[in-house]
Amino acid sequence: MKTRVCRLHGKGDIRIEEIDVAEPGAGEVLVAMGAGGICGSDLHYYQDGGFGPIRVREPIILGHEVAGTVRAVGTHVEGLAPGDWVAVNPSRPCNQCRYCLAGLQQHCMTMRFFGSALRFPHEQGGFRDLMVVDAYQCVKLENNDVSLAEAACAEPLAVCLHALNRAGASAGNLAGKTALVSGAGPIGALVIAALRHAGASHIVATDLQDAALDVARRMGADEIINVGSNSERLDRYTEGKGTFDLAFECSAAAPAVRTAIAAIRPQGTLVEVGVAGDVAVPLNLIVGKEISFVGTHRFVGEYAQAVKLIDQRRIDVRPIITGAVDLAEAPAAFEVAGDRSRAIKMQLTFAS
Amino acid sequence: MKTRVCRLHGKGDIRIEEIDVAEPGAGEVLVAMGAGGICGSDLHYYQDGGFGPIRVREPIILGHEVAGTVRAVGTHVEGLAPGDWVAVNPSRPCNQCRYCLAGLQQHCMTMRFFGSALRFPHEQGGFRDLMVVDAYQCVKLENNDVSLAEAACAEPLAVCLHALNRAGASAGNLAGKTALVSGAGPIGALVIAALRHAGASHIVATDLQDAALDVARRMGADEIINVGSNSERLDRYTEGKGTFDLAFECSAAAPAVRTAIAAIRPQGTLVEVGVAGDVAVPLNLIVGKEISFVGTHRFVGEYAQAVKLIDQRRIDVRPIITGAVDLAEAPAAFEVAGDRSRAIKMQLTFAS
Amino acid sequence: MKTRVCRLHGKGDIRIEEIDVAEPGAGEVLVAMGAGGICGSDLHYYQDGGFGPIRVREPIILGHEVAGTVRAVGTHVEGLAPGDWVAVNPSRPCNQCRYCLAGLQQHCMTMRFFGSALRFPHEQGGFRDLMVVDAYQCVKLENNDVSLAEAACAEPLAVCLHALNRAGASAGNLAGKTALVSGAGPIGALVIAALRHAGASHIVATDLQDAALDVARRMGADEIINVGSNSERLDRYTEGKGTFDLAFECSAAAPAVRTAIAAIRPQGTLVEVGVAGDVAVPLNLIVGKEISFVGTHRFVGEYAQAVKLIDQRRIDVRPIITGAVDLAEAPAAFEVAGDRSRAIKMQLTFAS
Amino acid sequence: MKTRVCRLHGKGDIRIEEIDVAEPGAGEVLVAMGAGGICGSDLHYYQDGGFGPIRVREPIILGHEVAGTVRAVGTHVEGLAPGDWVAVNPSRPCNQCRYCLAGLQQHCMTMRFFGSALRFPHEQGGFRDLMVVDAYQCVKLENNDVSLAEAACAEPLAVCLHALNRAGASAGNLAGKTALVSGAGPIGALVIAALRHAGASHIVATDLQDAALDVARRMGADEIINVGSNSERLDRYTEGKGTFDLAFECSAAAPAVRTAIAAIRPQGTLVEVGVAGDVAVPLNLIVGKEISFVGTHRFVGEYAQAVKLIDQRRIDVRPIITGAVDLAEAPAAFEVAGDRSRAIKMQLTFAS
Repeated sequence: MKTRVCRLHGKGDIRIEEIDVAEPGAGEVLVAMGAGGICGSDLHYYQDGGFGPIRVREPIILGHEVAGTVRAVGTHVEGLAPGDWVAVNPSRPCNQCRYCLAGLQQHCMTMRFFGSALRFPHEQGGFRDLMVVDAYQCVKLENNDVSLAEAACAEPLAVCLHALNRAGASAGNLAGKTALVSGAGPIGALVIAALRHAGASHIVATDLQDAALDVARRMGADEIINVGSNSERLDRYTEGKGTFDLAFECSAAAPAVRTAIAAIRPQGTLVEVGVAGDVAVPLNLIVGKEISFVGTHRFVGEYAQAVKLIDQRRIDVRPIITGAVDLAEAPAAFEVAGDRSRAIKMQLTFAS
Repeated sequence: MKTRVCRLHGKGDIRIEEIDVAEPGAGEVLVAMGAGGICGSDLHYYQDGGFGPIRVREPIILGHEVAGTVRAVGTHVEGLAPGDWVAVNPSRPCNQCRYCLAGLQQHCMTMRFFGSALRFPHEQGGFRDLMVVDAYQCVKLENNDVSLAEAACAEPLAVCLHALNRAGASAGNLAGKTALVSGAGPIGALVIAALRHAGASHIVATDLQDAALDVARRMGADEIINVGSNSERLDRYTEGKGTFDLAFECSAAAPAVRTAIAAIRPQGTLVEVGVAGDVAVPLNLIVGKEISFVGTHRFVGEYAQAVKLIDQRRIDVRPIITGAVDLAEAPAAFEVAGDRSRAIKMQLTFAS
Repeated sequence: MKTRVCRLHGKGDIRIEEIDVAEPGAGEVLVAMGAGGICGSDLHYYQDGGFGPIRVREPIILGHEVAGTVRAVGTHVEGLAPGDWVAVNPSRPCNQCRYCLAGLQQHCMTMRFFGSALRFPHEQGGFRDLMVVDAYQCVKLENNDVSLAEAACAEPLAVCLHALNRAGASAGNLAGKTALVSGAGPIGALVIAALRHAGASHIVATDLQDAALDVARRMGADEIINVGSNSERLDRYTEGKGTFDLAFECSAAAPAVRTAIAAIRPQGTLVEVGVAGDVAVPLNLIVGKEISFVGTHRFVGEYAQAVKLIDQRRIDVRPIITGAVDLAEAPAAFEVAGDRSRAIKMQLTFAS
Repeated sequence: MKTRVCRLHGKGDIRIEEIDVAEPGAGEVLVAMGAGGICGSDLHYYQDGGFGPIRVREPIILGHEVAGTVRAVGTHVEGLAPGDWVAVNPSRPCNQCRYCLAGLQQHCMTMRFFGSALRFPHEQGGFRDLMVVDAYQCVKLENNDVSLAEAACAEPLAVCLHALNRAGASAGNLAGKTALVSGAGPIGALVIAALRHAGASHIVATDLQDAALDVARRMGADEIINVGSNSERLDRYTEGKGTFDLAFECSAAAPAVRTAIAAIRPQGTLVEVGVAGDVAVPLNLIVGKEISFVGTHRFVGEYAQAVKLIDQRRIDVRPIITGAVDLAEAPAAFEVAGDRSRAIKMQLTFAS
């Protein structure tokens, strides 16, 4: 059995190639992929050959936001049958290291995560027509009205649900809280939807792109501010000692971090979701206002929650899906995905 | 100026009487009441002359769930004008004792709470056509489509929002959590709505009355169980070491407390909302499962949040409102309010 | 190779018998026990044939508070050599179930805990001259001045450190907090020492036995109150809305639970360490004062911490050790251990 | 009645002048100062005329770390009498703004803090022979063996206790935790003592000055590292994903912040105590390791706790006190205080 794969051979060098696929073994499932979202890290691999210290050192099949149809199941698999629609959890912790045994699988010392160049050999990803995965990675969809394109958003939504849980660890119940979300790309947009779902009382979204802010509005933002053209509209939130209970900083841009710190109230919580290298922060404000500046990384149990929320349409992810093209057109899709004025979330489709 | 009042002279002895009303002074507002909900504590005063150590020792005007129309404003009042609809916060902490200065106004050493017999002289309440209140107690409604009857539900909703915040203090973000709500009277029903609003993933409501459970369903419960006739349907939740992340126990009945403890997972949080005297609890389960059994009392900032949620219909309280009668019929209304098979929340209306 | 064991055949029926001991296999260690403390659960097995639903259904070797000398090591064991002194962690979670993978090994679905009759077949315990244990269970002592008798107190101390960590989960940093400790048996006494070590500012211990209170004083209590003869000395703590930030209830006696609830301040934390069946609690106080009534069960990482604290004498456990007799005299030791006027912690010694 | 004062007229311009002192009025106390510590902010005013946006715009009497002897009491003062030794809390919140009523007095909108140029007119401070203060500011000492010099360390110790409480808000009980303390000036040294008192299991202190590190050792550090000459000794702590549960960053130096982030384990807590303007931080590590980077500002109830700990010598502050000179020699004292190779904490003494 053969499958097409989307393999990156180096910066800017994506090739659609054909490789063998084995039959699913014990505890395994053969999935025919239906949709795969292009993530920021996929883009970084493509545009820059990596990010920070993480570099592509061998050909790598990209993709970790995937959903598809079960084609065959191996032995010792329960609860899955050919024809089932599943979202595929790309996270495969060892479940044996000290972090896993502390319930912190996202910090697993030997994490295997689809399409990641962090470790060597690299982990191969899910942008391929056919893939054998472990059964425990498959979360079944029940609602026929929900598309695989939506299901493929479970991974970034899980990241956002985890970011909210990180906020909750210091801020408690998020319902009734006010929040600033800076950066309205796919993650910012899904954070907004997750905050709306969690009962946040007032959500303000900022970005430099009106197109992104329009999506932010549709995902649940109460107010949108283009900080390129209307940054003064944030002034009323930074007055006194600041306003927001929470901020979710999704841009990793220094000015946005600075604004978020200024706009949070004393003892407020800023969750940093965006990733960059060194960024200058105003230490006097963090200290003087006793801000909790908290990092968030991937997810643990939130993946299954994300699938359920999408499946029940308690969170409707459709506004973030810009479009989809067949795997054969992946290079073009990566170009569109890299243009924030045109795209929030580009997806690939596969041969079924 | 005269006003009718609903004054309790002792157990079972409600009288509709007329008293004088002064003009509003500095910082005060004259409110023409529009709706007033009968609370469980009002009922206890009426049926039993008090509850626990709290006894009615002098005539007391009942009522602390009230909303009305501003009729006149005194000097030094900003942001309120005749004709405005307002929900009236019945809570008047001293803002000077050690608890108030720790942000725990609900534990104020000299709290003055509408219609409460806790202290002597008793605090007079809001079941009256006209009342002068402090301007800071008034929270304005913006939405003409929302009734004063709904606004009068702000107080019990605030109690429930506070209960959720108490849960969040140990459990963090409530979104995605599973919850058991035992006792589907007005508080249980509003807890359910608050949990739905806060993103709880699965809410199971229990009661002995099908009528109450029907309302629970309409307020957002995913599953309702009559523990009088179908208690075995809870069995799957108590299996192993239990299931629910959270329980909100609103009945104060010993069997319900026991079931909640059995149905919670290890390190889960049970918020006790209902009030009773001594209740036997299974210490071995609380200890062995490391349950957090947490009390909740009234509210602080949650009152303004409750008004806003009702005003924006983010929480729709209408299913709990059984009906309303004029103040003149208060004794009959108290009889209906005391019959759980007929009523969730009875309200009084007033002469305007 | 043969070893003596202390085996309970039924209520009141302890027999010193001889059984075979194998050589240590891969990853295993042969330990010559040096000291073993008699715990309350050992006593319950002996006096009552069990406690609550847990019954002795087959002969069981008792003992889970043990320390000894490494006699031999199997293959694949690092960091341990014959002659090393070790405290032996009696807790053996599966590290595979959902609780273990959430960092809650104390709630492991298939926990194997030395000398426990919870599951069937029962887990055999450590009151024996020689025992093969897993190397990961051994925590080495470095300080020659500390006895194995002290090291054998690591298990109950770990229980207490975990109880403090449970308090910290809701109360944060414990330094500077005031605390009531009710019940000054071995657990209460070690809780007091752990609180002193954690910087508690004022510790009040209560009990019915002056001998126990004397030990409590030596373990660090600032004030001791015999609630049998001087209960009025607690009155100043229950005045107003209560005083203590924290309470650790170690007696599981209903009056002590009631007093602890009365003596805690609003939003204080009561950790229930003692175990009993049903106990009546004043629901109105838990609710009205918003008490967090929190269970605590065994320990996870705290065992290694306990050994280190004892080894460095940062916590000196010697005042709780009443005395020790050879394994051959175990029945007599159990009789003494059961008399609270004579004993805090009785230990057994073994043939080396 | 006249008193000498230490008044700063501008950068580098300290003058010892004489002004009038009134009799203590109702609720007031006349204190004859005994000792006053020179703080980093005093130094910044002296050396730079301010720090960040805070500038000395009018003559200001410096000093907020003071203790003295009650000379006279006004009316309506209870519990204080001439001759009493008192530490004087320099913090005077309004107790009426929204932050005060939330228990966050350190964020009071109109805080009046001794010797602070934040607001205009500036708040005058305590470097003076005689001063009338509010009675509530005075915390009495009971132990004759403790000096006023030690008592004057209550203010910086309170800052450190608050920093620990901020850590506890996310990390829970601090006992048993490992901690890195970077920057071993007076604040770093007192953080170390506070951590030792709170039961931290292993404390590593870093600085560039051996003299400071020697004091750190005497205050309770288990290990000291001169990061100027031996920075490689920190390598074993940054290996893998890092080691420390907690870090207290007291230097506000960018390399120290970076090292602290590298040396903390995933989901560890870094409390930033030092103040500076913009500092570059490695966002990828904060995010990837889910660090909580938390600010801390002054104190609330911790002042009284600090006095008690000093008074009982549960924390012995003497190692940090470098020396003292009479107020007349203040300029020289400020020069010494500014030289970290010679001084940890310089103090002034006063005419009594």
